[in-house]
Amino acid sequence: MAKTRIGILGYGNLGKGVELACRQNDDMELVAVFTRRDPAGVKPLTEGVAVRSADDLAAHADDIDVLVLCGGSANDLPEQTPSCAALFNVVDSFDTHANIPDHFARVDAAAREGGKVAIISAGWDPGMFSLARLYATSILPDGADYTFWGRGVSQGHSDAIRRIDGVADARQYTVPVPAALEAVRSGENPQLTTRQKHTRECYVVAEQGADKAAIEKAIVEMPNYFADYDTTVTFVTQEELDRDHAGIPHGGSVIRSGATGEAGEHRHVVEFSLKLDSNPEFTGSVLAACARAVHRMSQEGQTGCKTLFDVPPAYLSAASAEELRAHLL
Amino acid sequence: MAKTRIGILGYGNLGKGVELACRQNDDMELVAVFTRRDPAGVKPLTEGVAVRSADDLAAHADDIDVLVLCGGSANDLPEQTPSCAALFNVVDSFDTHANIPDHFARVDAAAREGGKVAIISAGWDPGMFSLARLYATSILPDGADYTFWGRGVSQGHSDAIRRIDGVADARQYTVPVPAALEAVRSGENPQLTTRQKHTRECYVVAEQGADKAAIEKAIVEMPNYFADYDTTVTFVTQEELDRDHAGIPHGGSVIRSGATGEAGEHRHVVEFSLKLDSNPEFTGSVLAACARAVHRMSQEGQTGCKTLFDVPPAYLSAASAEELRAHLL
Repeated sequence: MAKTRIGILGYGNLGKGVELACRQNDDMELVAVFTRRDPAGVKPLTEGVAVRSADDLAAHADDIDVLVLCGGSANDLPEQTPSCAALFNVVDSFDTHANIPDHFARVDAAAREGGKVAIISAGWDPGMFSLARLYATSILPDGADYTFWGRGVSQGHSDAIRRIDGVADARQYTVPVPAALEAVRSGENPQLTTRQKHTRECYVVAEQGADKAAIEKAIVEMPNYFADYDTTVTFVTQEELDRDHAGIPHGGSVIRSGATGEAGEHRHVVEFSLKLDSNPEFTGSVLAACARAVHRMSQEGQTGCKTLFDVPPAYLSAASAEELRAHLL
Repeated sequence: MAKTRIGILGYGNLGKGVELACRQNDDMELVAVFTRRDPAGVKPLTEGVAVRSADDLAAHADDIDVLVLCGGSANDLPEQTPSCAALFNVVDSFDTHANIPDHFARVDAAAREGGKVAIISAGWDPGMFSLARLYATSILPDGADYTFWGRGVSQGHSDAIRRIDGVADARQYTVPVPAALEAVRSGENPQLTTRQKHTRECYVVAEQGADKAAIEKAIVEMPNYFADYDTTVTFVTQEELDRDHAGIPHGGSVIRSGATGEAGEHRHVVEFSLKLDSNPEFTGSVLAACARAVHRMSQEGQTGCKTLFDVPPAYLSAASAEELRAHLL
């Protein structure tokens, strides 16, 4: 059987994660990386993968079965996904929750026009966490959902700290509060404030001579990012940061606690949790599985924009329906 | 919008669980319970639900959108599901793993012949646990799967104890071994024997004058059921059993531990877990959501046998695709 020919647009941490995922799946072949940088300066981990300018995408529409878009949700994907979906089957990890309906509509129009299939907002949240919410809510309509993130590195919060005067580098961890997790797991359906659900741990490298007290105050009082949380700030050296905080771990839990019975007397707790050593590699692995599904849907003649909510789970797997029923059901 | 008209075949614990689930879902209406008992002796919890003889099923094919089959996998479903799938859209919870391929083939042939849709092997294992295995395996092809059951009541093991001479009643709990769970959650990918994964706790009511030592020996040495496990036997009175062990709780965890990276250096642990006060009510709730999906697939003109692996997750929900994208993605 012919392999699914994958292209990657954007070769940062996520693009590398998709590349590594392709290497683990015999039914996929990474054929090209497209970059907005000088292609001569980009060296994929995999032998024989072409590196091309993003400007040349259109010339390679016939060489690629699915293009995996590895740009950012803030600036890249709102333009890239609709424009690429007119020419390619695509997968993206668009994660600006509030803008998903608009993004979906624009990608859907472009994909239908081009006769292509797109899956947007794949990854783990949105993505696997969304699926956990959907399944549990469909089964237990009378209940409450909780999502906890971490312990893990938030790139956005780390960046926000780095923008403060006197900060040379920083790493921020989002940490769920154990007591809140336990209360939810017990089926108590607690009402939890933002502060009660997560704490934020910041590891900060100050520039020489910087006012550390001022930096700490700027962090813990920062609106939206830190003011609503119990935040701890620990100053470390660049060497310590590089040694102890080089990884990009993440994870979390989606928990639905619901009731059944004649009078809601039976409680049920459904939990889906992730503990990830590498956020971009796991996310890349989800995108690769979605690329497989996109290719199948396209081969069936489907067109338009989808999310994981629309994808029969078996389409994500390389195994046949018979194998899945015999071994995983 | 018209409600999905549900019929239930078999009014035991699972049938009642489906009935209770229908009451929680505004888009469903339970219209009839079919029973092999004398209909006059069956009283549904819900006002206005007809109780009919299972012999009259064929006469009501036009009154029911989906028939939910609530019989047992050993004796009822192998015959019932194919025969009903010729006349009705159906859902069952067939859970004899080794026989699923054969059951699927027979139901598929009947449903195609009748122009109907069937979902078999729905519930939580097979069902939600199967989905957890499929998603995690598709994302992390390089890894290992673990399924732990419990703490919960095993009906089959309880029945096996009751068949021993001198036993008046019994309740058996399957209990995961905490150290095994922790080793798996840590990402160690341990090799675990049957004995290392679960223990079995038996609460037994002996008949007056029965030889308790003989009963205990018969339990702990019983092949397949207990011999491969560390089993504890506690004798209790019927009153104690009724007071302390009346519930039918269950649950468990599916855990996949997998690796990504250039040399598998990053580990990821994906866990789906259930903690259920009432096994039949949760299972009934899964079957009700599947009935919704079956009705939709039938309205689209699909026919044949499906499993949850084939069902786009959105089909399980009463909410529209737009609502799901806006609120759960």
